[in-house]
Amino acid sequence: MILPFETRVKVRFGDVDAAGIVFYPRYFEILNTAVEDWCEHVLEVDYRAMHVVQRWGIPVVDIAATFAAPSRLGDDLIVRIIPQSLGRSSCRLAAEFSCRGEKRLSMTLVVVCTDLTRMTSMPWPEHVRPRIEAGLAAGVPGGSPDEGSEKEPGL
Amino acid sequence: MILPFETRVKVRFGDVDAAGIVFYPRYFEILNTAVEDWCEHVLEVDYRAMHVVQRWGIPVVDIAATFAAPSRLGDDLIVRIIPQSLGRSSCRLAAEFSCRGEKRLSMTLVVVCTDLTRMTSMPWPEHVRPRIEAGLAAGVPGGSPDEGSEKEPGL
Amino acid sequence: MILPFETRVKVRFGDVDAAGIVFYPRYFEILNTAVEDWCEHVLEVDYRAMHVVQRWGIPVVDIAATFAAPSRLGDDLIVRIIPQSLGRSSCRLAAEFSCRGEKRLSMTLVVVCTDLTRMTSMPWPEHVRPRIEAGLAAGVPGGSPDEGSEKEPGL
Amino acid sequence: MILPFETRVKVRFGDVDAAGIVFYPRYFEILNTAVEDWCEHVLEVDYRAMHVVQRWGIPVVDIAATFAAPSRLGDDLIVRIIPQSLGRSSCRLAAEFSCRGEKRLSMTLVVVCTDLTRMTSMPWPEHVRPRIEAGLAAGVPGGSPDEGSEKEPGL
Repeated sequence: MILPFETRVKVRFGDVDAAGIVFYPRYFEILNTAVEDWCEHVLEVDYRAMHVVQRWGIPVVDIAATFAAPSRLGDDLIVRIIPQSLGRSSCRLAAEFSCRGEKRLSMTLVVVCTDLTRMTSMPWPEHVRPRIEAGLAAGVPGGSPDEGSEKEPGL
Repeated sequence: MILPFETRVKVRFGDVDAAGIVFYPRYFEILNTAVEDWCEHVLEVDYRAMHVVQRWGIPVVDIAATFAAPSRLGDDLIVRIIPQSLGRSSCRLAAEFSCRGEKRLSMTLVVVCTDLTRMTSMPWPEHVRPRIEAGLAAGVPGGSPDEGSEKEPGL
Repeated sequence: MILPFETRVKVRFGDVDAAGIVFYPRYFEILNTAVEDWCEHVLEVDYRAMHVVQRWGIPVVDIAATFAAPSRLGDDLIVRIIPQSLGRSSCRLAAEFSCRGEKRLSMTLVVVCTDLTRMTSMPWPEHVRPRIEAGLAAGVPGGSPDEGSEKEPGL
Repeated sequence: MILPFETRVKVRFGDVDAAGIVFYPRYFEILNTAVEDWCEHVLEVDYRAMHVVQRWGIPVVDIAATFAAPSRLGDDLIVRIIPQSLGRSSCRLAAEFSCRGEKRLSMTLVVVCTDLTRMTSMPWPEHVRPRIEAGLAAGVPGGSPDEGSEKEPGL
């Protein structure tokens, strides 16, 4: 039994708006932080070396968010990252944000493994692929690898 | 013939990442800027008075983005806002980002007219509603007001 | 012997610019994060309750920064907060940012204890004052409480 | 008679905090925007070409800000940039932020003309230097070029 990856991000003063709740663009920065943590802990890839030395990255080509309840200053958000499907060079991820058991928002996003020098998609590195596959089983019951739609990275 | 609302936003140094292209969470801040401009110019609502004096707002409850091509430092982005459907208190908007005729990304979002004191949805103010309706015709041929799905604001 | 307060902040993808180093305005957001942590751990004040329930805050009225060396993606920055002087309602703090023993930048800032309802300065709460005083001794040898210049909050 | 350079920046929803006033780290992003505009209009340098093609920049090595009065959502800030002194490769600038004639904050900063490939200071390009010198006269009466302290860029 593999558990989905989780990371914790605290809502800071700079994240909240005049109504005292998180300004929604900040959630995408928080998501990026969580994806960095997922890369390091699940893919076992050093996020800096990946970009600067090995020159590959995982830009987002599609993202959707549904906001369920507001978050406030000081909230400890739990962000859960769950792979949904895996293609040759793409991966669909679900991200669920909650606080003290209450769902705050959910996102789905498609990232594409990208050669940053040529700015074209590339297959997932061999040592990375099985680590994502392992996570596919961690999500919804019956989750299994499939060939997600392939897209050229646009970001 | 009504033209869709357009506003221009320049890509600044603080918007770009280590690859020299716009870091995608910044697009949501740019979108919010464009929606502020749309409120002022199309809805003819002062964005500050709306929040601080009249105590209503239009939080986003759903948003999706598809990235087509990267944007770089100094690009003048044209953001076009097109109402897609109008409900009692919600509105679906399309936002198209382009630069020198090239499509960069597109978003769709649902905003909900919200009483900020009670944090519940409220019907669009009477003087605002026809201004959104006028814009519905400006988009895709045949665009017309319909009753979009109603949602309670969650943001 | 009291040690200065330290907190750790990781440099994230959203913090770095096209040159791959931290975009300097982000250091002020990182500082604010560190000051939030200092409030909670040293002043023993819940940052949210302070603002929302008790309605006081510590806006910055003066700040200066000197940048010594760049920081890069993935760096774990140690931010050390050291009170320098304490007035009736103001406090001068030094903030030192380092990574793996290398100094990155230093800041000095003056915060003013402020009644957020009336937006005027107020004396430090009685239970908070001694906690700042304790930290004065932690900094430079011979550090001791003095009456810093009083300013009305402008932020 | 040369007038100081001025640019206008509107306070957006994403700039204000839970108290409805500009969160101070945002002022440094606004400053950077104003300095970009100053480069383009006064130095007549394309900010993108400068960084990406010619590979030089003007990182900030020292900055200080004093906050006089808060700014609110929708405020049109006028940012005035005034060169104070000019060295071989450095320049001290004053930046004054105001709104409807009211002073909001003032900053002074030292930028260093920097070779981005070697990350070392370099003399101001010959065509740029006289354009900064012209601005020295625009500031305080009697303003004149002097040799500011030289520093290696640390940012």
